[in-house]
Amino acid sequence: MTRFAALLSLLLTILTTGASAAADPSQGQAAATVRSPDGQIVVTLDAIGGHPAYTVHYRGAELISRSRLGLRFRRQAGLDEGLALGQVARRRDAGEWEQPWGERRVVTYAFKEITAAFVNQADPARRFQVVVRAYDDGIGLRYLVGPDAVGEQAEIVDELTEFAVPQDATAWWIEAGLPNRQEYLYRTTPVSEVKRAHTPITLRTDDGVHLAIHEAALVDYAGMYLKQLRSGRFEAELFPWYDGIKVRAQTPFRSPWRTIQISPDAPGLIDSSLILNLNEPNKLGDVSEWVKPGKYVGIWWAMHIRDRTWGRDGIHGATTEEAMRYMDFAAEHGFDGVLIEGWNLGWDGDWYRNGDVFSFTEPYPDFDIEAITRYGHERGVRLIGHHETSGNVTNYEQQLEGAFALYERLGVNQVKTGYVADAGDIKRLDEDGIPRYEWHDGQFMAQHHVRVLESAARHRIAINSHEPIRDTGLRRTYPNWLAREGARGQEYNAWGNPPNPPEHTAILPWTRMLSGPMDFTPGIFDLRPNERPPVDPSMGRNDPRSRIETTLAKQLSLYVVLYSPIQMAADLPENYEARPDAFQFIKDVPADWEQSITLSGAIGDHIAIARRERGGEDWYLGALTDEHGRSLQLTLDFLREDGAYTAQIYRDGEDAHWRDQPTSLVVESRPVRHGDVLKLDLAPGGGAAVRLRFDGR
Amino acid sequence: MTRFAALLSLLLTILTTGASAAADPSQGQAAATVRSPDGQIVVTLDAIGGHPAYTVHYRGAELISRSRLGLRFRRQAGLDEGLALGQVARRRDAGEWEQPWGERRVVTYAFKEITAAFVNQADPARRFQVVVRAYDDGIGLRYLVGPDAVGEQAEIVDELTEFAVPQDATAWWIEAGLPNRQEYLYRTTPVSEVKRAHTPITLRTDDGVHLAIHEAALVDYAGMYLKQLRSGRFEAELFPWYDGIKVRAQTPFRSPWRTIQISPDAPGLIDSSLILNLNEPNKLGDVSEWVKPGKYVGIWWAMHIRDRTWGRDGIHGATTEEAMRYMDFAAEHGFDGVLIEGWNLGWDGDWYRNGDVFSFTEPYPDFDIEAITRYGHERGVRLIGHHETSGNVTNYEQQLEGAFALYERLGVNQVKTGYVADAGDIKRLDEDGIPRYEWHDGQFMAQHHVRVLESAARHRIAINSHEPIRDTGLRRTYPNWLAREGARGQEYNAWGNPPNPPEHTAILPWTRMLSGPMDFTPGIFDLRPNERPPVDPSMGRNDPRSRIETTLAKQLSLYVVLYSPIQMAADLPENYEARPDAFQFIKDVPADWEQSITLSGAIGDHIAIARRERGGEDWYLGALTDEHGRSLQLTLDFLREDGAYTAQIYRDGEDAHWRDQPTSLVVESRPVRHGDVLKLDLAPGGGAAVRLRFDGR
Repeated sequence: MTRFAALLSLLLTILTTGASAAADPSQGQAAATVRSPDGQIVVTLDAIGGHPAYTVHYRGAELISRSRLGLRFRRQAGLDEGLALGQVARRRDAGEWEQPWGERRVVTYAFKEITAAFVNQADPARRFQVVVRAYDDGIGLRYLVGPDAVGEQAEIVDELTEFAVPQDATAWWIEAGLPNRQEYLYRTTPVSEVKRAHTPITLRTDDGVHLAIHEAALVDYAGMYLKQLRSGRFEAELFPWYDGIKVRAQTPFRSPWRTIQISPDAPGLIDSSLILNLNEPNKLGDVSEWVKPGKYVGIWWAMHIRDRTWGRDGIHGATTEEAMRYMDFAAEHGFDGVLIEGWNLGWDGDWYRNGDVFSFTEPYPDFDIEAITRYGHERGVRLIGHHETSGNVTNYEQQLEGAFALYERLGVNQVKTGYVADAGDIKRLDEDGIPRYEWHDGQFMAQHHVRVLESAARHRIAINSHEPIRDTGLRRTYPNWLAREGARGQEYNAWGNPPNPPEHTAILPWTRMLSGPMDFTPGIFDLRPNERPPVDPSMGRNDPRSRIETTLAKQLSLYVVLYSPIQMAADLPENYEARPDAFQFIKDVPADWEQSITLSGAIGDHIAIARRERGGEDWYLGALTDEHGRSLQLTLDFLREDGAYTAQIYRDGEDAHWRDQPTSLVVESRPVRHGDVLKLDLAPGGGAAVRLRFDGR
Repeated sequence: MTRFAALLSLLLTILTTGASAAADPSQGQAAATVRSPDGQIVVTLDAIGGHPAYTVHYRGAELISRSRLGLRFRRQAGLDEGLALGQVARRRDAGEWEQPWGERRVVTYAFKEITAAFVNQADPARRFQVVVRAYDDGIGLRYLVGPDAVGEQAEIVDELTEFAVPQDATAWWIEAGLPNRQEYLYRTTPVSEVKRAHTPITLRTDDGVHLAIHEAALVDYAGMYLKQLRSGRFEAELFPWYDGIKVRAQTPFRSPWRTIQISPDAPGLIDSSLILNLNEPNKLGDVSEWVKPGKYVGIWWAMHIRDRTWGRDGIHGATTEEAMRYMDFAAEHGFDGVLIEGWNLGWDGDWYRNGDVFSFTEPYPDFDIEAITRYGHERGVRLIGHHETSGNVTNYEQQLEGAFALYERLGVNQVKTGYVADAGDIKRLDEDGIPRYEWHDGQFMAQHHVRVLESAARHRIAINSHEPIRDTGLRRTYPNWLAREGARGQEYNAWGNPPNPPEHTAILPWTRMLSGPMDFTPGIFDLRPNERPPVDPSMGRNDPRSRIETTLAKQLSLYVVLYSPIQMAADLPENYEARPDAFQFIKDVPADWEQSITLSGAIGDHIAIARRERGGEDWYLGALTDEHGRSLQLTLDFLREDGAYTAQIYRDGEDAHWRDQPTSLVVESRPVRHGDVLKLDLAPGGGAAVRLRFDGR
C-alpha cells in the first residue's frame, strides 16, 4: 500500500519550473493563484504597492483578507517593500504515508503548490521565494531565502506575515509571552479581544467556518505568536534570542510553514493532518524496536498533592521500596512503564530558578536505580526516566550523553524531560561562559530540542517533553518525540489555583492538541477536594479549591479524547485498587491507533471521538462535556458492516455531577452493530468511555 | 527666594563618600538603608544570594517586597548575580526651585540619598552603583554603570528591576505594546489582572495607600513598561531597537530614575513633584521671551468630525480664508494662537503608513502662509505650526532645520508635532539607507525628541508632541517641551469607537497626568451625537456612538483639572458664539499657575482641583465626576484670609445629565471668603468650573 502510494505520488507530481506569472513583473501588479485539489480554497499572492501579500478565499468568499508578507533583517534591507512578483513554479502531489505510531496509521495527502519569486524592483538580482501549498483542509506558506537575497548570514529581526481574519469570529486562545509559558486557561472571546496569542489559535466565524492558525516544521527558527494590530489583523511575532535577534540563519534557509487549517465544521479541524503533512518524513528509520507507545504509572501525583516530596526535605517519594511497589502494580495491571520523579540529586531546597543543581546520573542514596530497573526487567516493566532541568539547559546538555548512556544501559527507553522556568528564563552559558536567558519557544530551544532528540535516538530513547517548545508536527521527522505537555495539564487540579474548569478538556482538542499529542496525565479517581496538609510545610497550604472538576467517567473518556501515544494512569495505586470497575477501562484502552474519527463536537461544549486500535478491530469511544449535562446520539457507522460488537459502556450515573457526585459511575454492556445509534447521557462535567469490542463477524 | 533656596540647599548637602556598609561585603549579606526626611519611607538595598535587590517599607510595613535589580548585556556578563554590596555613599539635600511655567511656580524638594556599589565577588574590580533617593512623597532609584563594569560600550538586552507590589491592590492601567501606543481606555482591575502595563501605573492598596510606578529623566535610554511575572511581582521591560537591543550606551551611563510615588491618599499623588524633582535643571536658560503658556483655537476638530479634510480629497480645512476667520475669532476672544493642521503638502491619499509623503516647508497653494501669519501678527495672534510625520522620522529630521527656520521667520513659536504610526512602526533610515522600524518609546525616539527640542530651541520654538514618547518630566530640563498627548484625548469622542466614558477624565489625573501636562484639547460645546455624513466618503461612516459623554460644565472643568500650559478651545467658533455664557469661563481661565491644590478625589470617581493664576490672586476651581452624579463640599481654606472674593460658578443645571441634557448649565455668582464651604452638585457625567475672583482685601 505505501509503496503503491509513493508511486502514485510520483506519477501525480507535475513540476512546472520556469512558468512565469501572467502580467509584467516589472509592474509589480501580477498575481499568482493556487487552488486546493477540491477547488474550495484559493490562495493569491501579489506585490501590490511593492509589498508582498497573500489572500485566501474559501468557498468563493474572502476568508483571509490581503495580508502582508515579508522579513526584516539586522544588517540587510528588508524583504518587504519595493518588490514585484517574478517567476512562479507550480507543483501538485498526492499520496499517503504511514506513521510508526499515531492517531491513524495511514495519513493521506493531496496538495497543489506554487513557489513564487519576489524580486527587488531596484535590484532584480535580489529576490526570495514564497511557497504556498493548498490542501483541502488548509494551507501552508513558507519563505525560502537564499544568498541572492541577503548574503551568507542573516539575522532576522522581524517577520511581517499577517493573518487578516474575519472580524466577527469567536476566538479560543491563550496569551503569549507570560511567565507560565503555555499553561493558561483558554479564553473564549470575540476576536477583537485577542492581543497576543500563542498558536494554535482557533477561530469560528459567524457562518460556522472553523480556522486554526499555527506553524509546522519548526526545526531551526524561532517559534511564532500572533499580535493583533487592528480589527482582525494579526501579525506574526517571533520569540527572540536573549539579545533580541529573532532568528540567526545561514542562507539558504527556509522558515517553518505558517499554517491555516480550514474546516466547514468543528470536527474537521481535529481530523485534519495538515500539520503532519507539512513536516519532513522520518529521519530516524525504523524505530519500532525502541519507540513504544504505551501506558504508564508513576510516582508523580503524590508530589503534586503534596503527600510526598521530590527531594528529601519532606517525605521523599522516589525510594527503592516505593519504586518496587509501583513496579509490582504496573506488572499486575499490564502497564509498560513506571515514571519516577525526584530520583536524582538536586531536588533539595529551592531548585526552581536556583542554578545548575541537578545531576542526571546520580540517584539519591535511597533510590537504588540498578536494583529497581533489574526488578522491573524481571516483571516486564521499564523505568521511565526523568530529566528535570529547571530550565538550566547548559547544565543539562553537558550531562546529556552520560545521562542517556546510563539510561540505555539500564534498559530505560523513554525519558520525560522538564523545563520548569519562567518563560524567557531558560538559562544557558554562551561560548564565553556568560549566562544568557532564552525563551522556551525561541530558536535556541528549537535547536536544543533537536539536539536532545538526536542524542536520545543514538541511545534508543524516546522523549516526552514537559514545559516544551510548542509542537509543530516534528514527531513525523523525529518519531522518538512521543509527546509533550505545553498546556495546562492534570497537575493544575492538584494545586487548585484554580483547577481546570469542566470546559478545559472540551477546548484542548481544538487548540493545543491540533499541534500534536499531549501528555495530559488523565485518570485521577480520587475526586475529592484535597484537604490534607502537605508533608512539607514549606510547600504552603493546599489551595481549598484544589480538586478535579470532572466525573469519574469523564476521567476515563480522556484516554480516548486527548490523543497521546503514551498515557499515564496518574493516580495512586490504592485509588485504582478501590475502583476496579472503572480501572478496567484504563487497562483495556490502547495508546496506539489504526484510525480516529471525530464524531461530534462544539468547541468548549462537548466532543466525541472514536478510535480503532492499531492492528485490531476493537473501537474505543470517548465523549465529554463541559459544565452542562447533555445527551449525545452517536451513530456507529464506523463499525464494520459485517461485524458483531459488544459495547462496554462506562457512563455517568443518573445522579452524577462533577461537584456533588463525581464518582457515580455505571458500567454496562450490550451488543451493537454498524449503524446503531448509541445514546450517551453526560452529567454536568461528565463524560463517557466505551469499548466496542469486536466479537467476530 | 530662589537664590535663598539654592543657598539653603547648599547648606543642607552632606556628602559622605567612602562610608561603607556595616557588614562584611564579601559575605554579600550587608544591607544599606535610606529613609525619607519624614522617616515614613525606608528603602533597603541588599545582595542576598548574590542578587542585588531593594525593599521599601512605608509607615512601618513592607510596601514593596524584596525586588531584584540588575542589567544584562549583549556581550558582557550580566550585572545581576554573584554580587556583594560594597561601599555606600550618603547625601541629603533640600530646597526649592522655580518653574518658568507650570502647575506651580515654586517646587520644593527634600531627600536623602544613598549610592551603593555592587561588587562582583569573583572579580572585585567589576562593579556598578545603584542610587536611591527617598523623598517624603516617594522614591527614585537608578543605575550608574561605568567602564569598570562593562567596558566602553554596552548594549543592554534586559533590565531586571522588579516592583513587587501589594497583591491586594487595585490597579489603573493601560496595556503596553499595542498598536495604538498609549491611546487606550484605562482599566480598573485587581493587580493580578495586569499583564503588561505602561507607566505610570497607579495602585491603591486595601488600606488606602496610593502608589504610582513610573520613570523620570528618560533622556538617552529606552522607555520602560512593566510585565507581571507572578502575583504582584512586576519586572521592568524596555522597548527595544529594531534589532532587539534595548539600550546602546557608552560608559559611564546612568539609567532613568525608576520612580514610586507613595501617598496615604489619592490627592497626594497628584500634588507630588517627585518626577520633576528627579529631572535635571533647565538647560535652555531664560525662555520667558519665547516659550509662552497660553490658549489657542484651531482648524482641527472640523477634521475629526469629518466636516473638513486634512488634504484636498474632500473639503480642505486649511485654506487662507478659513485661517483668517480663525485668526479673527482668536483675536476677538483673546486667544494667543491658531493651530492649523493640513496646511502642508502630503495629506492627499493614504498618508498613514505610506512613506515619506510630507513636506514641512511647502504649503498647499490654497494656504497662503505668508499672508496668514502677517494677518495674525497684525491682530496679536500667532499661527501654531504643525508637523505630522506619520512616523517617518528620517524624512522629518532631514527637513527639521528648514522647517523650524521657516516658522521662526514667520513668527511661529509653537509647533505641534505628530507621530501617527502603529507602535513599533516608526520608520527611519539607518546609515546605509536601510529602513528600520522603531518603537515610539524606544531609545531611538528618546534621542529623536531631544534632537527636535534642541533644534526647536535654536529657532526659539516650543514643542507640543502628539503620539509622543512618554513624559518623564523633561519639561524641567527642556522648558520648550510644553505638552504632549500620550493618552486618549478628545478626538476619540469625535470618532466614537467608543468615545471616552465619563470616568476617563476622572482617571487621567492619577495616571497619564502624573507624568506631565497633556494636550487633551477640551472645550467641545456641541455635545450632540455626530450624525452628519463625512465630507469625504472614503473616510467611512461616522460611528453612531460618536459624541462627548460629558456635560457642558464638565467640559469647562477640564481647563482646571487637566493641567497643560497650552489649552485648546477645541470646538468650532460658531459653537462658542452660540454659548457666550459658558465661553466666558474659557476666556477667563489662565493656562499658567502660581500654585495647585488637589482638594478632593477618588480615582475613577471624582476630582476637585484648585489653582491660583500665575502672578495673580484669582483662584480657579475645577471639579468633575464619572457617570454618577454627586455632591461635593469644598472648603475654601486656600483663599487669602484677608481677601474678599466673588465665586463665578459654572455648574450643571438641576436636570443636567451627560446623556439627555448635557448642555443644561447654570452660571451664577456670589461672594465668598476664606473658610467658606462651597457645595457643588455634579450631574451624572458632569462637573463644575469656578472662578474665585479676588476683589481686594
